[in-house]
Formats: sequence, structure tokens, C-alpha cells
Amino acid sequence: MVETAQEAERHKAKMANRKAAQDAEVAGKTIEKGLLIVHTGKGKGKSTAAFGLLLRALGRGFKVGVVQFGKGAWDTGERHAIDRFPDQVVWYALGEGFTWETQDRTRDVAAAERAWTKAEELMADPAIRLLILDELNISLRYDHLDVARVVAALQARRPDLHIVVTGRNAKPELVEAADLVTDMTPVKHHFDAGVKAQEGIEY
Amino acid sequence: MVETAQEAERHKAKMANRKAAQDAEVAGKTIEKGLLIVHTGKGKGKSTAAFGLLLRALGRGFKVGVVQFGKGAWDTGERHAIDRFPDQVVWYALGEGFTWETQDRTRDVAAAERAWTKAEELMADPAIRLLILDELNISLRYDHLDVARVVAALQARRPDLHIVVTGRNAKPELVEAADLVTDMTPVKHHFDAGVKAQEGIEY
Repeated sequence: MVETAQEAERHKAKMANRKAAQDAEVAGKTIEKGLLIVHTGKGKGKSTAAFGLLLRALGRGFKVGVVQFGKGAWDTGERHAIDRFPDQVVWYALGEGFTWETQDRTRDVAAAERAWTKAEELMADPAIRLLILDELNISLRYDHLDVARVVAALQARRPDLHIVVTGRNAKPELVEAADLVTDMTPVKHHFDAGVKAQEGIEY
Repeated sequence: MVETAQEAERHKAKMANRKAAQDAEVAGKTIEKGLLIVHTGKGKGKSTAAFGLLLRALGRGFKVGVVQFGKGAWDTGERHAIDRFPDQVVWYALGEGFTWETQDRTRDVAAAERAWTKAEELMADPAIRLLILDELNISLRYDHLDVARVVAALQARRPDLHIVVTGRNAKPELVEAADLVTDMTPVKHHFDAGVKAQEGIEY
């Protein structure tokens, strides 16, 4: 691509302005705190992005806790990878599968309570710097756990603890309490074209 | 939560129906292929979800390639974690930073070309099963690379290679060619409340 000297200058001036604006914006952010992060929406990537955060935190030397409220698809690929960090990860898979798997509401409620008790324990452990509550939104959506109680506990987190909550249909009370909320919105999905779940991608 | 036997039965029947529908849907997906996945949108989680996929693929024993078209924020946390898998990851950071950092379009184009050449090499390496082209969408958006050429090469990928492309403003031609496209839509961001980027979360 050939450009004239004048074009190059104009481009340079424009980009210099943009950089100045960006630098000023970054300089304006001064508060440090443990974040409450929510990944919701019908698209892919909610739990996957949480595990990306886990990878980053591990690289930083953080100790990380994971509590799975759903059965999840996370037993295999991620767990093998996580085995390389035995002293840094505490992982509890306490969901019994989604409610359409168990077909027993009383059991679902008991499983959610067990998982929540474990989450509270990890929140109280000062060594843990990142806590992933995978599919907690599902337990809240079906009222297996009381949303007011859960949100109050999340808001009372230590200032040096980041928490990530995943799952569709995040409750408005949780969104209100969160620092960062992203909706993973499906644009296109290969399942619609008859393509099956792929090893190493979906599980 | 107390429920009557009748309520429990009704719940059970409803969930059994849902499970049957779900199982039938899964059984209908039979095609295996390497997926072209796009993470776009203005929200967080595009690259992070790609690195979550990387973690899963590593756990499955796959060899993975990463080419960074932008400078990215990925040098630190993730790279330290990746060091635990020295034989499984090939990583090239070939971006020179975004165009508002370099302020030099000719240099941006040259950097994008170098990164794309490396991407083509990795696509041709039969050992690589997952290839992450981080921030490629930015290079396409600013026409540092020709979209028709890039999309044609991505479509000609091996059937056992999954490719993930990240970055805002995915071009329509790429969305059209992709199997799975997710838009990470920001709902709420702590930067808006003056909170700064946090170690182990944003970098």
C-alpha cells in the first residue's frame, strides 16, 4: 500500500490525538478493588472466558478457587490443564447436572446449597485471589438459592478477591451489584448447521 | 423449600420432556469439522475466551498456535501460565501495538503482513490443532490485510484445525465464513466508575 507523505502525516496526527485521549482515560482510573464480574447471555464463551481469567491469574501466581454449580462440561480438557498447577487451584464440582437432568427439585436445591457453602468457605480463605462460581446464575434463576442472600455475600467480599459468576439469565440484582457484566450474544452457531460438539473446543 | 408430591411429579414430567428434547437435538449433530470461531463485540472476554479454549485444548493434549496481531495485553499472566506447556504452544507476538500507538500506517501494514505470514505457516503445520489469531479483526478493519485473501485462506483450513479470530468489528465476510460467532456485548464496565485495570484480571 503506497501513501503520500501528506497522507502519512495526516494519519499520524489523527492517531496521536487518539492516543492522547486514551492515555488520559487510563490515568483517570485510580480505584483498586476486587471485581465482581458476570458473564451471561445465550452465546458461547461465558465459562470459557472465566477459564481464560483463571489461566491469567495462575500465570500471575494467584491461588484460584472454582465451584461448579452445574455439572458443566469442564471435567476433561480444563481439568487436565489445571493439573499442571496443583498448588494454585482448588476445584469443587458440586452440581448434580442441570435440573432437566436430575428431574428432582429437592435434590437440585440441596446440591446448590452444598455448592454455595463451599463458595462461602473459599470467600473466607485469604489465600484465594480469584473465585469462579460457574453456572451460579442457573441456581439463582431456578430459585435454588435466595438471590438476596447470595448478592449480599458477594458484595461483602474481601477487597483483594475477584469473583466471576457465569450462566445465562443473570438476575437483575446481581447485575446491579456487579462491576463488570458482559452478555455473550450468539451471532451464529454451527449446531444450527448440524455440526456436533468438538473435542478440545466444546469439551 | 417444601413441595407437595404432586408438584414434584409435575416438575419431574416437565424436566423429562425437556431432557428428551435436548437429547434428540444433540443426536442430530453428526458433522465433525475444524471450526472457524469469531469472538467480536465491544465487551470484554474476546481474547480471554480464546485463551480459555487454549487451556481446554492443552488439557486435551493438542498442540496450539497463537499469533498476536495487536500488541495485546497478553505478555504477562497468560505467558507465564503457558510456560508450563513448553512442548504444546507456539506463540508469536508480531503486532507492534495498535495503530494509535505506532502512529505509522506503513509500519502497521508491514507488521500485519509479518503476522499473517506466520499464521499461514502455522495453518500448514499438521501438528497444530488449534490456532488463535488474536486481534486479527483489527488488522482487517483498518485494511492492513486484504479481507478476501484472509477469508479464503481461513476457509481452506485443514478439516482437523480449529481457528479462533478475535477483535472488535469483525468484517461481514468473516462472519459469513465462520461456524461460530459470538458478540461480547458490554452491559456494565467498572472503568466507567473510575476503577483501574487490575493485575490478574485485565493483565
